[in-house]
Amino acid sequence: MSVTAAKGFTAAGIAAGIKENGNPDLALVVNEGPRRAAAGVFTANRVKAAPVVWSEQVVKGGEVSAVVLNSGGANACTGPRGFQDTHATAERVAEVLGHSAAEVAVASTGLIGTLLPMDKLLPGVAKAAAELSAHGGEKAAIAIKTTDTVHKTAVVTAGAAGPAGGTGPGGADGGASWTVGGMAKGAGMLAPGLATMLVVLTTDADVPAAGLDAALRAATRTTFDRVDSDGAMSTNDTVLLLASGASGARPGQDEFAEAVRAVCDSLGRQLIADAEGASKEIKVEVVGAATEDDAVEVGRSIARNNLLKCAIHGEDPNWGRVLAAIGTTSAAFEPDRLNVAINGVWVCKNGSFGEDRDLVDMRYREVHIVADLAAGGAEAVIWTNDLTADYVHENSAYSS
Amino acid sequence: MSVTAAKGFTAAGIAAGIKENGNPDLALVVNEGPRRAAAGVFTANRVKAAPVVWSEQVVKGGEVSAVVLNSGGANACTGPRGFQDTHATAERVAEVLGHSAAEVAVASTGLIGTLLPMDKLLPGVAKAAAELSAHGGEKAAIAIKTTDTVHKTAVVTAGAAGPAGGTGPGGADGGASWTVGGMAKGAGMLAPGLATMLVVLTTDADVPAAGLDAALRAATRTTFDRVDSDGAMSTNDTVLLLASGASGARPGQDEFAEAVRAVCDSLGRQLIADAEGASKEIKVEVVGAATEDDAVEVGRSIARNNLLKCAIHGEDPNWGRVLAAIGTTSAAFEPDRLNVAINGVWVCKNGSFGEDRDLVDMRYREVHIVADLAAGGAEAVIWTNDLTADYVHENSAYSS
Repeated sequence: MSVTAAKGFTAAGIAAGIKENGNPDLALVVNEGPRRAAAGVFTANRVKAAPVVWSEQVVKGGEVSAVVLNSGGANACTGPRGFQDTHATAERVAEVLGHSAAEVAVASTGLIGTLLPMDKLLPGVAKAAAELSAHGGEKAAIAIKTTDTVHKTAVVTAGAAGPAGGTGPGGADGGASWTVGGMAKGAGMLAPGLATMLVVLTTDADVPAAGLDAALRAATRTTFDRVDSDGAMSTNDTVLLLASGASGARPGQDEFAEAVRAVCDSLGRQLIADAEGASKEIKVEVVGAATEDDAVEVGRSIARNNLLKCAIHGEDPNWGRVLAAIGTTSAAFEPDRLNVAINGVWVCKNGSFGEDRDLVDMRYREVHIVADLAAGGAEAVIWTNDLTADYVHENSAYSS
Repeated sequence: MSVTAAKGFTAAGIAAGIKENGNPDLALVVNEGPRRAAAGVFTANRVKAAPVVWSEQVVKGGEVSAVVLNSGGANACTGPRGFQDTHATAERVAEVLGHSAAEVAVASTGLIGTLLPMDKLLPGVAKAAAELSAHGGEKAAIAIKTTDTVHKTAVVTAGAAGPAGGTGPGGADGGASWTVGGMAKGAGMLAPGLATMLVVLTTDADVPAAGLDAALRAATRTTFDRVDSDGAMSTNDTVLLLASGASGARPGQDEFAEAVRAVCDSLGRQLIADAEGASKEIKVEVVGAATEDDAVEVGRSIARNNLLKCAIHGEDPNWGRVLAAIGTTSAAFEPDRLNVAINGVWVCKNGSFGEDRDLVDMRYREVHIVADLAAGGAEAVIWTNDLTADYVHENSAYSS
């Protein structure tokens, strides 16, 4: 259902010929209204792709009527010509749909440093527009894949008829149900601020741009920003949230924010599940931290330790590498009070060996590491993957 | 020649039975005087192994008469018992040699989180002491190997008879030649502050502890601290510099510091050349930086980017990944002024594509990346390795 699960949206996904293998590579998502409120969160990388620079400006206006996304080329580090190409793409969408280009967001993903084949992309826009459908969400999700092995979608429905159970505390939805849905792509270059990914979320709730922005920032802070597959931050990360208001429902901010968080959480987990070459999904849970910032810093340090990631791949409960990673941070802790559990076995107690490491069962795909800093009550979860020969193979192939 | 190249030192390397495979695992280096001045630099990791905690205290006294080093166990994260074991090791060395334990430094390397087999290590000390020799440097260098495929040594001789050419500016060596020599181990967990490694340097120059400390800190700052094979900082890094004064030479501080730097530089390069699983040695040279700190931050970010390290392994001049890594730093630069050369070809100019990437020849083991920030005149070099399936295999084997 993806981006067309919410009422008031149409979408399409087609093969424009940007990818040489003929796979789908162009997606279009259109907000049919009545509202066109929007919010966005973009990469924290200072080297930003042309579509990121463009879309940041579009979102600042608070209204987005369409998003055009391509795989097969990131249009990053392409200079003034690359920005002109993004601009021309938005103009073409505006022309075909009869909207203003200032309300058309653009997102691109693929190889950095090469120009897009505009002679294929621009005709593709008209072709995609001709196929727009209220059932086109799945095709759109497929068209934005790069090295993804599966397409990723998530939907939450709430309000009177939805599973969230009507008007909760703070709710004022007038009885109508409403939906938040979305699609994501991303399989490598996954690191905070954000993962390398394109995400489009849609809702038929009637929420103004400021409410969308608050909900989206809160959601990404604890979901996509805490997905760290390989420590490499992209130039193209884009997360957009579009509201059509077509359900007529006006949910309370807390209720709406929770639905957005749930969809982001699902999509983030799907990114980790499909990370390039990974054989394990690792939940790094930091507890007992003095502050949430400390917990996140420690979680990221653990998640980025190549030696630990190799050990997890080898099903080795190597808690020494966890401690070595914690020791590089500035978080509050005393080395001789640290505790570490791997899959429920406290292999490290008070900074030294604890329960027998041979008790740790690591046969399954999910691995759960708990790092207890014994310094307070704050906590955070970072999701990452193991480091595998397949990851190396996939990313050492010439120009991916 | 290693640690016995300088006059006034004896050394030994033996198999004490700490390693289950029977390979040499215990080294002893003794300063026979007449001076016993010493300096040391230790890991910046806050989780420090017991021997690091011990040796930091020993070095603070400014005199070291012996260093005992073992491979086969790091004695890290081993609690109070681990510290007692380090203390007992120093006491045994002191007893056998007739020195004070307060002048015996201890260094260990191997698996974190397991106690050392003291029933084998302590008898090994007496055995090593019985084999001490002015020609024992090579055996000592061999005994500290873990996953190293070769042992690493370096020697510089200077002064009247040496290649450095007598009394240079600031020199006051009185005509006698003097030597700085050393040994190093380290093949994984190599990252700044310091690389995972044990290094013992010796000199027969007559330099007081303060002069040794100044020379050693200056040398490690631009050599070992800029070796970043895999971003993983160890709990056990130790670099010691011992001076016997046996040559009678008193070199000028600048001349002496340069000799120490040259030996550290050689050993650091040998560590990168022997890094676990690596197929490439990558020189990341950052130029045009506003400050040296900026240059180092950018160099480390590039050196730690797993996607780039995979690309280099695949001989793919993927400059987009270089720019993505630069973009995550706080260094002063404008994205559209960045330039990148790979093996002499400026594949990125002004933040966009430059010369044809197909011109880049990456067949050789050494790869040279130049990142020009176009923001000033400061520069720095960071050495790293590629990321390979062999690295994954070596580090995913159960408990290395």
